[in-house]
This record gives sequence, C-alpha cells and structure tokens, in this order.
Amino acid sequence: MSSRFKRTRSEAVYDGKLVTVRLDTFRHEDSDEVTREIVCAQGAVAIVAHDGERLYLVRQPREAVGAFDLLELPAGKLDVGGETPLQTARRELVEEIGKAASSWSLLARYFSSPGFTNEQVHVFEATGLTDQSVDTEENERIEIVTHPLSELDALIDDVHDAKTLIGLLELRHRQGRST
Amino acid sequence: MSSRFKRTRSEAVYDGKLVTVRLDTFRHEDSDEVTREIVCAQGAVAIVAHDGERLYLVRQPREAVGAFDLLELPAGKLDVGGETPLQTARRELVEEIGKAASSWSLLARYFSSPGFTNEQVHVFEATGLTDQSVDTEENERIEIVTHPLSELDALIDDVHDAKTLIGLLELRHRQGRST
Repeated sequence: MSSRFKRTRSEAVYDGKLVTVRLDTFRHEDSDEVTREIVCAQGAVAIVAHDGERLYLVRQPREAVGAFDLLELPAGKLDVGGETPLQTARRELVEEIGKAASSWSLLARYFSSPGFTNEQVHVFEATGLTDQSVDTEENERIEIVTHPLSELDALIDDVHDAKTLIGLLELRHRQGRST
Repeated sequence: MSSRFKRTRSEAVYDGKLVTVRLDTFRHEDSDEVTREIVCAQGAVAIVAHDGERLYLVRQPREAVGAFDLLELPAGKLDVGGETPLQTARRELVEEIGKAASSWSLLARYFSSPGFTNEQVHVFEATGLTDQSVDTEENERIEIVTHPLSELDALIDDVHDAKTLIGLLELRHRQGRST
C-alpha cells in the first residue's frame, strides 16, 4: 500500500546545464528505506494559443529524440527566477510566435515522468491574440506553423509530444463538454 | 527554420541506474554545431485497462516528485531486452494489477519531454480482462484503484501524470468520435 515518506539523505551525483541528478534516500512510515535516482529539471510551460480559427504551433529540431520536425506547442522552461508559470507563458508566447494574449486559463498541470524526474509542466490556453514584435535572434530554428482549429482531430493524431498531446486533447475535451 | 542534423560527437557524462546523461554534438545542414545535454532513459509503456464499466488504476509513492498518492495508469519500463512494447505491456498488466487482456490497441506514442530526454512512452488500451495470479513481492507499495468508466470526466480533472492524462484523454476522445 502507498505510504507517506520523508527524505533522509540527498547526494548530488551530476550537475549539468539543463538537469542535475540526485541520489536521494527516503524513509517510509513502515521504516523501509529506498534510494531513488532523480533527474531534477526546471519546470516548464506550454501554450495552446488560438484565435478561434487557427492554432499556433512550432516545429523545431529536437536533437534529444532524433526528430527533425516534431510538432509542438509554443513552450519554455521556468528559467527566470521569480517568474510565475503564467508570467513565463506570456513571455514565451511573445518570444516563440510573436503574440500577446488577452485571455489566459490553465488547461493542465502534470508531471512529465514521475518515475525518474521531478519536471512539472503547466499548460495554458491563450486567446485574444495580438501581434507583438519578436526578437528573432533567439529563434532561428523555430518555424511557426498554423493549423485550422476545425481540423483538431486530425492534428491530434499527428502529435507525439506529451505537452502538445495533453494541451490539444484538453482543448478538444472542453469543446466536447461545452456543446 | 527547422533543419536536418547529424550527431558528430557523443560524450557520456553520467552513468546511473535509471538514466545515463550524454553531451552530444550535432551538426546542422547550415554547418552550425550545437551541443545538447540528453538524459537517456529506457522507454516505457502504460495501459488503459477497463472492462467497459471500471478502469483499473494504481497509486504508488512517487518520491521523485514528492507525491504520496499520484493516481496513474499501470505502467512499466522497457527493461527486458528483446521485448516489444506490447509484450512489456502484457507483462506489466499482470504484475501490477493481476489481469490479462484479450484485446489490445495502441492509444498513443509520445516523447515525455523532448527538450531534455529521449524517453518515449507507448500507451495501450486493454480490454477483455481476466484474472491472473500475481507475484505480490514486487508490488508491496502499489495500491490498485478502480474507477467507474462513466465518471471519466471527473477522473481526468484529478490526474496530474502525463501518461495517465494522455491515456484517459485519448480514451475519452475516441468515445466522443464514435458516438
């Protein structure tokens, strides 16, 4: 049965650029001790941005998974100290697709893979879009792709990225509930 | 714009129990080189198992995210050499909830967080469930939880784990398309 636990030891074993790895020991209520290898990552945000007719997505090379053209939501890491997830989402939406949004709501909050990493992702819906000037320097390999909102089902079948699947499926789910 | 790339260097910087970390260098078509820190994880499977009335879920302590009672699909790593994802799913369904299933279909295949890890997850739907004897030794902290399929919407609101959200949202999505 599931039980409460507390951390009794923590050892940093790798300190990288994006992640750190710790070997942490936890004591459960029944006195059992377990050691877990934990990949510590900054949290992230992703944004389902649409104007009622078109969704704004991005394609970028994802070297980690060997993919040349993974279709994804605009997204970014919580890498600016003091920012809330919503503030990061507002900043990333401008940086990645050059849009501001007047209306924001939280679609989902999830752990990417709780067996080995503490990464948590907040997924927002952003509507009421207006153009904003973009600093293109940072974004040379990001291609903006728009997709008709009316073809959401076909799009969902083409998506193989967790945050994007979750955001689009949640959007579809809410459409279904409201009709 | 997105471009093709090839790996030109690979350096192992951490070799752990669950993950390894590599610093890999890639050369893009325009000759630009980038170095990426990549957390290499075994892939995983997750199973949306139901008998048409009840869904079978599990709760287990997830020390990595500090959660005592995360609600999840039965799941497991692709840690047996030579097994296909479907074979792993069949094995894990028996080990985690003591069921075999006569009907299997792939609901989704996704990358957990393609910015930093190569982990890929296959999510199956399993129906036609029958009891199988379980080796309980391995599973002492796994609690099996059943949930009425008719209350799927409320369940989805309570889920904060990527594979479980994706599996249940895909199931809901397909229910919506077939009615």
